[in-house]
Amino acid sequence: MYLLVALFFTFSEAAFAQDKVDLEMVHKIKNEGIGNSQIQDLSFHLTDYLGPRLSGSSNLKNAREWTAEKFKEWGLSNVRIDSYGDFGRGWDVKKSYIAMKDPYYAQVIGYPKAWTDGTDGLVESEVTLLEITSEEDFDKYRGKLKGKVVITPANLNSDPAFEAEASRLTDEQLEARKTVSIGGGGGRYTPEMLAQLRAQRALDQKLTQFLLEEGVALRLTGTRGNFGTVFHTRAGSFSTDKLPTVPEMEIASEHHGRIYRLLKNGYPVKIEAEIQVEWLDDDYKGYNVLAEIPGTDKNLKPELVLLGGHLDSWHAGTGGNDNAAGVVVMMEAIRILKALDYQPKRTIRIALWGEEEQGLFGSRGYVQKYVADRNSKEKKAEWDKISAYYNLDNGSGKIRGIYLEGNDMLVPIFEKWFEPFHTMGAKTITTRNTGSTDHVAFDAVGVPGFQFIQDPIDYGRGYHTNMDVYERMQFPDMTQAAVIIASMVYHTAERAEKLPRKAWK
Amino acid sequence: MYLLVALFFTFSEAAFAQDKVDLEMVHKIKNEGIGNSQIQDLSFHLTDYLGPRLSGSSNLKNAREWTAEKFKEWGLSNVRIDSYGDFGRGWDVKKSYIAMKDPYYAQVIGYPKAWTDGTDGLVESEVTLLEITSEEDFDKYRGKLKGKVVITPANLNSDPAFEAEASRLTDEQLEARKTVSIGGGGGRYTPEMLAQLRAQRALDQKLTQFLLEEGVALRLTGTRGNFGTVFHTRAGSFSTDKLPTVPEMEIASEHHGRIYRLLKNGYPVKIEAEIQVEWLDDDYKGYNVLAEIPGTDKNLKPELVLLGGHLDSWHAGTGGNDNAAGVVVMMEAIRILKALDYQPKRTIRIALWGEEEQGLFGSRGYVQKYVADRNSKEKKAEWDKISAYYNLDNGSGKIRGIYLEGNDMLVPIFEKWFEPFHTMGAKTITTRNTGSTDHVAFDAVGVPGFQFIQDPIDYGRGYHTNMDVYERMQFPDMTQAAVIIASMVYHTAERAEKLPRKAWK
Repeated sequence: MYLLVALFFTFSEAAFAQDKVDLEMVHKIKNEGIGNSQIQDLSFHLTDYLGPRLSGSSNLKNAREWTAEKFKEWGLSNVRIDSYGDFGRGWDVKKSYIAMKDPYYAQVIGYPKAWTDGTDGLVESEVTLLEITSEEDFDKYRGKLKGKVVITPANLNSDPAFEAEASRLTDEQLEARKTVSIGGGGGRYTPEMLAQLRAQRALDQKLTQFLLEEGVALRLTGTRGNFGTVFHTRAGSFSTDKLPTVPEMEIASEHHGRIYRLLKNGYPVKIEAEIQVEWLDDDYKGYNVLAEIPGTDKNLKPELVLLGGHLDSWHAGTGGNDNAAGVVVMMEAIRILKALDYQPKRTIRIALWGEEEQGLFGSRGYVQKYVADRNSKEKKAEWDKISAYYNLDNGSGKIRGIYLEGNDMLVPIFEKWFEPFHTMGAKTITTRNTGSTDHVAFDAVGVPGFQFIQDPIDYGRGYHTNMDVYERMQFPDMTQAAVIIASMVYHTAERAEKLPRKAWK
Repeated sequence: MYLLVALFFTFSEAAFAQDKVDLEMVHKIKNEGIGNSQIQDLSFHLTDYLGPRLSGSSNLKNAREWTAEKFKEWGLSNVRIDSYGDFGRGWDVKKSYIAMKDPYYAQVIGYPKAWTDGTDGLVESEVTLLEITSEEDFDKYRGKLKGKVVITPANLNSDPAFEAEASRLTDEQLEARKTVSIGGGGGRYTPEMLAQLRAQRALDQKLTQFLLEEGVALRLTGTRGNFGTVFHTRAGSFSTDKLPTVPEMEIASEHHGRIYRLLKNGYPVKIEAEIQVEWLDDDYKGYNVLAEIPGTDKNLKPELVLLGGHLDSWHAGTGGNDNAAGVVVMMEAIRILKALDYQPKRTIRIALWGEEEQGLFGSRGYVQKYVADRNSKEKKAEWDKISAYYNLDNGSGKIRGIYLEGNDMLVPIFEKWFEPFHTMGAKTITTRNTGSTDHVAFDAVGVPGFQFIQDPIDYGRGYHTNMDVYERMQFPDMTQAAVIIASMVYHTAERAEKLPRKAWK
């Protein structure tokens, strides 16, 4: 492994003299990023001030307007809130309350599932435990559920945490991340497993329909997470032709467990609960926020270096690590470059994507509109203009390296560009892929798109939860990330050639 | 250290032939405890079914009745709910709700402080940040707080958990726990520090009075804990001559932080909240639940071996680790002995104490009533009859040893009695003291009272919180503890002599 690295270094210095690091600029970027950091103030505004930023919600609209205003304040050019096409129905929570009334009063930590319908005022009802494992089981409950609260079993883990919930990547882990395995890694579904999954899914859909027909007042679902942390999902769809669903709340695993065990042991449980929601039907479009430092080189200025992260979040925290962190770091990176009065050769564009959490809507919409159609393979105006898209969406842990998505040609270039940041812990260049976020939209059409390797800290403990908030964000780590990304963007913008590409398969 | 132990062993075998372990009885106890464990069912009933058991509350009354009934069902003798004297006012929560309305709707995880007054219906108000560090600061707010919600700053830690939250004691830690330090260990308060603490306390009391005079509608307080876990305290007093206080809620550190930061940055915050409580003024007495396996030896049957734990808990979880765990283990220990149809020489009495969390009321009341007056040093009927009191109140982690409270004479005896449990991880006999729970009431009057060394698991993460519930309880650990305690109680009940005592200083 070390031999391999040494080989690349030699290769790099011979063939990529153009990829020399501009240490004077790196020095300036570090000075501005560390000396005048806006990370903490931006983080406060993105989380506490703007609140949860669910796809299509009023808060997300506010966040678009606030970030666009901030870009204008910084003197960025071509600041615009750009529709990428259709998203669906917006949805705001106006009230949410749930408590157990019998066998004694007890508050329940619970949140409306995203895009659930509201309840018909305050629901007060005994809870029915639904144990449905086959079609026949529906008959046991038919005609008995009108106005009732129902709960389904869940297999939730409550083991104590004998391992630390937060960690940084060790040198060994980073080194291991460079290895690329060839061929199937096992773990695939057998036909029997697939059939079982399909059957369960069909039963789940039937249950949803059944509860609606029965006139159930409220459905309670347990989630993973513990000690009061609740992971979020959505209830049905945000699409404009969505059918009504039974109001549904996700409750803390401990409270789900308590209600489940009481019912299973034959003790009645009574719940009082209320959900008020507002559907936003005035605008079904989705948007990205875009802003630029215009290129100044006669030939290169139509070309682009993109950096970005997603502005939307789930709805019960304030999306601190997922992904106010990425948005703040990217905003700070472009702020640093602008504050240095840097005149790039290529145009630098920041993009704050909408609706990532519901399926990369913003970045895919942007690519579809400006870059290429990934189905027909039709290339559009920006396809051959984008040198790279840099993304940050794995929490607020510092950058330890970068995933190259199989692009071997980039190894020597990025090895070089990371050199000044070895002392900040960032040095691992891997050709591995990583998934699940907006760089995928670019990579899918053959345009270089990258996500960084980040220290996990306690990302897995809190992302997508009610507790993904300001307190989760690691400001010194984010400062490091902003400095590194500003430098990466600078070197990409100044490079004689666009970054080498993989073939678009 | 090992040399010392070896010395005691030799001494033990010579001088305490009477303290031979009865392996046949140990075998029977293990068989019953492991084979027919009631730990899980008892834990379910103590937590989920009976709910939070705050001192003086309706649920605690229910818990007394339920446990007494269970003792009768098991065939124990002299089952009684015994008043130890006065406690104070009972208090039940009937409703609790809090959410942020502005700058956007967001649920807040918050609980009424114990014994707070309720609000006057639903409070809807802007929040005022009170920053009071000296007498003069009151003037800034005077006349401006009527009907308002107020919040005070707090210095709450939100660092990620790079250390595991759950652990077991290592051999090294257990060995270290045997060492006893002589003399002052430093860390004492200087006169300046004491003066500062007194000044802060005076200011806090003035603030409480000020808020009442101003007619504040609700006070919000941050607590330690994170990720949705809230630690509890009480608002003012449960005493019958208690003055009214401003309604007060303890909220999750992250939600406290958000409201604080918004206000500090000049953004208005609006809260809606409601607390309904019920004061229980029909009975100010406090109670313990007592039950026995009567002694059968002509001479020894008036003597007692006591085992117990406290039945009360804080009010927003269900007191799983603190201290349903101890109650369940002690109940199971006496159940095991009764199930074996064991006829002890001395009388075995289980005591489930009331009101421990508010200052060891139950155990101190029992001692005062039956054992001795710790002020006048007047001895009462049971003072020279109790051989030992065994207590469990450090969570549900298994027993790793026992604290002897400075009683050197017990080392060889307990070394012997623990021998059959070395293979279950329990072997550490230390003369060290441990505090903060009911054995202290006995030790204070010169009667042997003991708390066991227990694996901490994640006790510190959740005790006294909304998340101290069924899920926190480690059933295999509790089974081990019940078996060991049953054996300890057996050997104490059968021993020719009462256990040797320290002088009552």
